[in-house]
Amino acid sequence: MHETRFVLAAGTTATAERDGISAAGADPAMVGTTPSADAELLTYGRPVRTETVPVSPEGCPTPALVTRAVRDRVGFDVTVVDAGVAEPTAAPTVSVGAKPGRDIAEQDTVPTAYGAFEAARQFGRALPNAELWLAETIPGGTTTALGVLRALGEDVMVSSSLPENPIERKRELVAEGLAASSLDAGDAAGQPKRALRRMGDPVLATLSGLTAGAVETDTAVTLAGGSQQLAVAALVRHGGYEGPLSLATTSYVAEDPTADLRAGADAFDLDLTVTDPGFDREDHVGMTRFVAGEAKEGVGMGGALALAERAGVPMAAVRESFADSYAQLLDG
Amino acid sequence: MHETRFVLAAGTTATAERDGISAAGADPAMVGTTPSADAELLTYGRPVRTETVPVSPEGCPTPALVTRAVRDRVGFDVTVVDAGVAEPTAAPTVSVGAKPGRDIAEQDTVPTAYGAFEAARQFGRALPNAELWLAETIPGGTTTALGVLRALGEDVMVSSSLPENPIERKRELVAEGLAASSLDAGDAAGQPKRALRRMGDPVLATLSGLTAGAVETDTAVTLAGGSQQLAVAALVRHGGYEGPLSLATTSYVAEDPTADLRAGADAFDLDLTVTDPGFDREDHVGMTRFVAGEAKEGVGMGGALALAERAGVPMAAVRESFADSYAQLLDG
Repeated sequence: MHETRFVLAAGTTATAERDGISAAGADPAMVGTTPSADAELLTYGRPVRTETVPVSPEGCPTPALVTRAVRDRVGFDVTVVDAGVAEPTAAPTVSVGAKPGRDIAEQDTVPTAYGAFEAARQFGRALPNAELWLAETIPGGTTTALGVLRALGEDVMVSSSLPENPIERKRELVAEGLAASSLDAGDAAGQPKRALRRMGDPVLATLSGLTAGAVETDTAVTLAGGSQQLAVAALVRHGGYEGPLSLATTSYVAEDPTADLRAGADAFDLDLTVTDPGFDREDHVGMTRFVAGEAKEGVGMGGALALAERAGVPMAAVRESFADSYAQLLDG
Repeated sequence: MHETRFVLAAGTTATAERDGISAAGADPAMVGTTPSADAELLTYGRPVRTETVPVSPEGCPTPALVTRAVRDRVGFDVTVVDAGVAEPTAAPTVSVGAKPGRDIAEQDTVPTAYGAFEAARQFGRALPNAELWLAETIPGGTTTALGVLRALGEDVMVSSSLPENPIERKRELVAEGLAASSLDAGDAAGQPKRALRRMGDPVLATLSGLTAGAVETDTAVTLAGGSQQLAVAALVRHGGYEGPLSLATTSYVAEDPTADLRAGADAFDLDLTVTDPGFDREDHVGMTRFVAGEAKEGVGMGGALALAERAGVPMAAVRESFADSYAQLLDG
């Protein structure tokens, strides 16, 4: 598996502190910790410097537990990029100069966007792997993804980590953000870095830079995730990159009727893989929250499931590993 | 192998800029780059942000190629700690607040020693692995190791990355350092952090902190290396830690008649493993430099060889992997 590298961009945006837009973390204070904890879970299999496993107010565990469960079975290499984490993490990270993002309604939302994009692009060019799977963890990230899509003029609705997608709330925030940036929808078409800086977040800047660099050097890229990865694809396409790109997500995002995952994948010419972990087949407290529509994606869950499928690991084995780490980390 | 984690502390000391004490890097300018390059070689199998594979003036490649060759066969997890690197590295790193060390003849040689020791100790306590193998890369490190040993009052001579150990030069530098620190030999006995700050380097501070934290939580620790790891053991013993500790090194260090590896291992109550890669059996330009006494150790080479032996991987297979990456990276 040395040909395959899974790269997690972990970061934060102050946009997540707005009420009612994210299910990441049982209380608002956890929102800043979740990316650092996710990075540790993926790297070490448990929290190290952070103290708790992120769980939503309704009891849904972070999708990092699913990705890690696959990693325990398949054994791929992981690299975490610091795309603006707010809390120190014990996971080793690569720096691209990203800092935590500001609120979407600020005029200059991501001051580090240009630098992070370029540093990530150089990193993506230099990585020796034959294929990269790119993942994200950033609470509030679907709102900034919608912001970027609107700035680019793409009419694609994003999904949500909440069972009820707060579409109106997101639209309001994006309208506020566009006004604060003196932009109309579509004003940043063909200008991905401008869209990132005015309306995005540091994870989107990092992932789109990584993708651009990898595509330039003919490295195969799979964007592992849902709406946020659609925004990454849109950014890369608006930057003039036309090479093949894949998107691997979960059935939870692909079947979310409030979002436009399949239409977006068509619009941005993505080779789409959708994987269902079969959580509805088990009577497990952690799995039922996913079935109820929480979380849906994150930390490359859909990509990890696709890697398991490709390696011939049955979903029942992935569910077993997930249940084991849930028991070890959350029942204790 | 998820129970085993190989942790590389990568850092620098201005002491390496002194003439005639290190073989790391073909020219003095490479001395600052070597730790970053070693971290990338161990992580990715080739340079990524750095541009060249470190090679001594006589043509000896970095021992990172040996450790990586074992990793290609055995597949252990690697974590790099930033113990004061001077050049950006594309390897993901854990921060413990260490900065590049100053020259040994400064009064305050390692201002970050206390903080790095404590942060590394907390990290060592928190790591979930059953066993840690600790490695180092820091040009000039045997001189600062001698400095620490003298400050602690331990009469143990260190080895060298040069075929002719510049013992007198090291003694002079250490005498200069002790004078600048207003210390006599033995004045820092029982005070490891004082010895580190006055006479050491940030890699020694990081590794002794990691070891202390791991020992406190009953994690098995193998110090992978030669003289510098003897200094780590001395620091940990002077800190009052009495638990079991192992040292795994190469036959090149163990058989160096100018140094006291075996006596030191006895003095600090270390379970010693010595492994010979059998480089004398091959007619290979990279291997003959090791046989001639260059490098001898570094980047956990001796520990990696011990891991190969434990896993039942023949040394001939390790030599083959080493020759493959040498051909790919240095003959090209």
